[in-house]
Amino acid sequence: MSLGFRHSCRLFYSDDPVKIVRARGQYLFDENGSRYLDCISNVHHVGHCHPSITQAAASQMELLNTNTRFLHDNIVLYADRLAATLPEKLCVFYFVNSGSEANDLALRLAHGYTQHEDVIVLDHAYHGHLTSLIDISPYKFRKLAGQKEWVHVAPLPDVYRGMFRENHPDPAQAYADTVKEVIEEVHRKGRKISAFFAESLPSVGGQIILPQGYSTKVAEYVRSAGGVYVADEVQTGFGRVGSHFWAFQMHGEDFCPDIVTMGKPMGNGHPVACVATTAEIAAAFTANGVEYFNTFGGNPVSCAIGLAVLDVMEKEDLRGNAMRVGAHLKGLLRKLQTQHQIIGDVRYGGAGLFVGIELVTDREQRTPATEAASRLVRRLKEEDRICVSTDGPWESVVKFKPPMCFSMEDAELVVQCIDRILTDKVRTLRSMRFLLP
Amino acid sequence: MSLGFRHSCRLFYSDDPVKIVRARGQYLFDENGSRYLDCISNVHHVGHCHPSITQAAASQMELLNTNTRFLHDNIVLYADRLAATLPEKLCVFYFVNSGSEANDLALRLAHGYTQHEDVIVLDHAYHGHLTSLIDISPYKFRKLAGQKEWVHVAPLPDVYRGMFRENHPDPAQAYADTVKEVIEEVHRKGRKISAFFAESLPSVGGQIILPQGYSTKVAEYVRSAGGVYVADEVQTGFGRVGSHFWAFQMHGEDFCPDIVTMGKPMGNGHPVACVATTAEIAAAFTANGVEYFNTFGGNPVSCAIGLAVLDVMEKEDLRGNAMRVGAHLKGLLRKLQTQHQIIGDVRYGGAGLFVGIELVTDREQRTPATEAASRLVRRLKEEDRICVSTDGPWESVVKFKPPMCFSMEDAELVVQCIDRILTDKVRTLRSMRFLLP
Repeated sequence: MSLGFRHSCRLFYSDDPVKIVRARGQYLFDENGSRYLDCISNVHHVGHCHPSITQAAASQMELLNTNTRFLHDNIVLYADRLAATLPEKLCVFYFVNSGSEANDLALRLAHGYTQHEDVIVLDHAYHGHLTSLIDISPYKFRKLAGQKEWVHVAPLPDVYRGMFRENHPDPAQAYADTVKEVIEEVHRKGRKISAFFAESLPSVGGQIILPQGYSTKVAEYVRSAGGVYVADEVQTGFGRVGSHFWAFQMHGEDFCPDIVTMGKPMGNGHPVACVATTAEIAAAFTANGVEYFNTFGGNPVSCAIGLAVLDVMEKEDLRGNAMRVGAHLKGLLRKLQTQHQIIGDVRYGGAGLFVGIELVTDREQRTPATEAASRLVRRLKEEDRICVSTDGPWESVVKFKPPMCFSMEDAELVVQCIDRILTDKVRTLRSMRFLLP
Repeated sequence: MSLGFRHSCRLFYSDDPVKIVRARGQYLFDENGSRYLDCISNVHHVGHCHPSITQAAASQMELLNTNTRFLHDNIVLYADRLAATLPEKLCVFYFVNSGSEANDLALRLAHGYTQHEDVIVLDHAYHGHLTSLIDISPYKFRKLAGQKEWVHVAPLPDVYRGMFRENHPDPAQAYADTVKEVIEEVHRKGRKISAFFAESLPSVGGQIILPQGYSTKVAEYVRSAGGVYVADEVQTGFGRVGSHFWAFQMHGEDFCPDIVTMGKPMGNGHPVACVATTAEIAAAFTANGVEYFNTFGGNPVSCAIGLAVLDVMEKEDLRGNAMRVGAHLKGLLRKLQTQHQIIGDVRYGGAGLFVGIELVTDREQRTPATEAASRLVRRLKEEDRICVSTDGPWESVVKFKPPMCFSMEDAELVVQCIDRILTDKVRTLRSMRFLLP
């Protein structure tokens, strides 16, 4: 007997993996009772093993857990609650089991509505593990099947490392123009755009914050081409950015995607996900006459858990907490940046508990400090029992996406520890220089 | 606010849908407290809202629900238990959230191992709602995108209605030869077979029982062509057939698929599914160097629930029950067949609680009695509060796939009610003849 993903899935700390046996809030406990501060479990949104979530799940499991072929209140209540967080236009909901299922359905909806085939994605993007999503994930397809003729890659609008940087007069327009160029190129080939598909904050791409105004302009170009704008909020939704419930809302009041996909934090670990879209797009999907049925999607237990997550968020003001703690964490990290040359960038622009710092070996060339980032992650775990991880094309971005109950003290602790390790590293390097002949 | 699948998903009893508010064992209760006998919820395998499952879920939710990037005992214990039900060769397990995710991964595994692209499926098959699975589901793609060049459809080996029937000297060989011919045709086009993909008992196709020997021969032809045999056990696994734990095991000791996908009953309603395969196929998947990670797949709660389902099955001897009650149900239905001309066929060959009766307007032509099947389903619900449903290309097959705790008395009740309705129908028709001028 063997576990496929033990081989195909990269464990955290693969050379010395951790066996966690229980968790609570923002803390993990291993088999020896050692406590770890968890800065990475964005799925466990309202905190690990929150009693209100367990209670809601157990109560509904005791009562009923059928499927959507029967009427049930929970799904209606839940869709209503989600609708209240979104622009009015996004008023139709499909419930599924994972962000990947949501993104696959989004592709089908876009295709059904536009009757076009081609999709534009951002470089380094990852949208899920399904066949159709590997096709639209440069992060995956570059290493696997290669690029399909209906998939087009636009530059990642990364103002720190990308083609237009913070010194550019209008990076939003410049990056949006690259999408316009892709559309023109697609049209020259006699093909047509079905969708522009992007995370509202590209995560695997390196915790990127899109330049203000970019999404609005891209949506305009994509819609002019007859396509739709899909906002992948699987990683970034449900108040993680603090200031707004959805990360796409950071892009301004005038911006509204045509399809929004959600997943990870939605069930605090329970497999539930969703696609929200407009009445027009849903009508086109229904008009094809082929039913959509998802065995587990939208079942009463999944919806009860989803509702409980929203309740806890409100009751404990976790969005407010994300805003306050996120701002404090970023403030501390920016201060740290002034003391450590290796911190090339602290992602700025939004707030909340979606934070990244990019390590570089030199600030001029911005050479990714991949090794140093990996060492920092390992030392935080070994010396301080703090879990963080890396992301970005060169794994040089140290990312923080903790449970939303992450506290001011947690933020201070992790920054202190990073400071100590980075200082220590400098000291070690200096002393090594003395020792070298 | 609207629910997409309310439009795209067909409700049971769409003209008078039922609002179920609680359930227990094989019984559903609506908002007025009326009790329905449930003959269709194969997902709620050990019975609706089984207290042992709720208990297992709640206990683990209270403790920990991380992901597979951390080590955890539950997943290892669960994979071990599943391995014990399967041939030794199927020793690698990937945990996912739905049968659709499992089938999509099976396609990827087959492709990764064979490096071929083409897939052979059975006519009328349905393998899931994802883009890649619609491509291999004639039941869906005939109404939607159409057939892809890499998909090939072999005749459904239906000995009641198919091209070779019960009077054929060797329908297994004859149907297996149709697959051989498809392979030869594929080769003539210069293409190569990646997989033969089939449910071990085609369900949407009409609760079909494959002729004995068919699968072994097909596997031989497919492997000779460098392809693999994928057994979709999403509907049929976990002891539903009574005599064996997996439906493919009915095809003989010498038959072993290369990949087995499982889902629906696995978590008794909780979203959990799995792919089992050989060490060789898993090694080829790992060798591509791209990690496979499924956010919720194989989490400690899903595995705790999966383990609890297996425990209840053993403790309550539900496989034995399925064998005994299934045999009784089929015996009663065959007796009914001798009394009602409209019952053209009672699916025979296997045992267990995967049963279908095919209604025909005449036994000679075997014309599907679609309307009569629909009326029977409606009257059973309205007059007797018994839930059954239809399947098959003409919705003329009344199917029974109840929770595995379905009792002898339940079987007797449903057959009595069918008898009464069918008798009544004959009487009504006769009296109408008297009244006609």
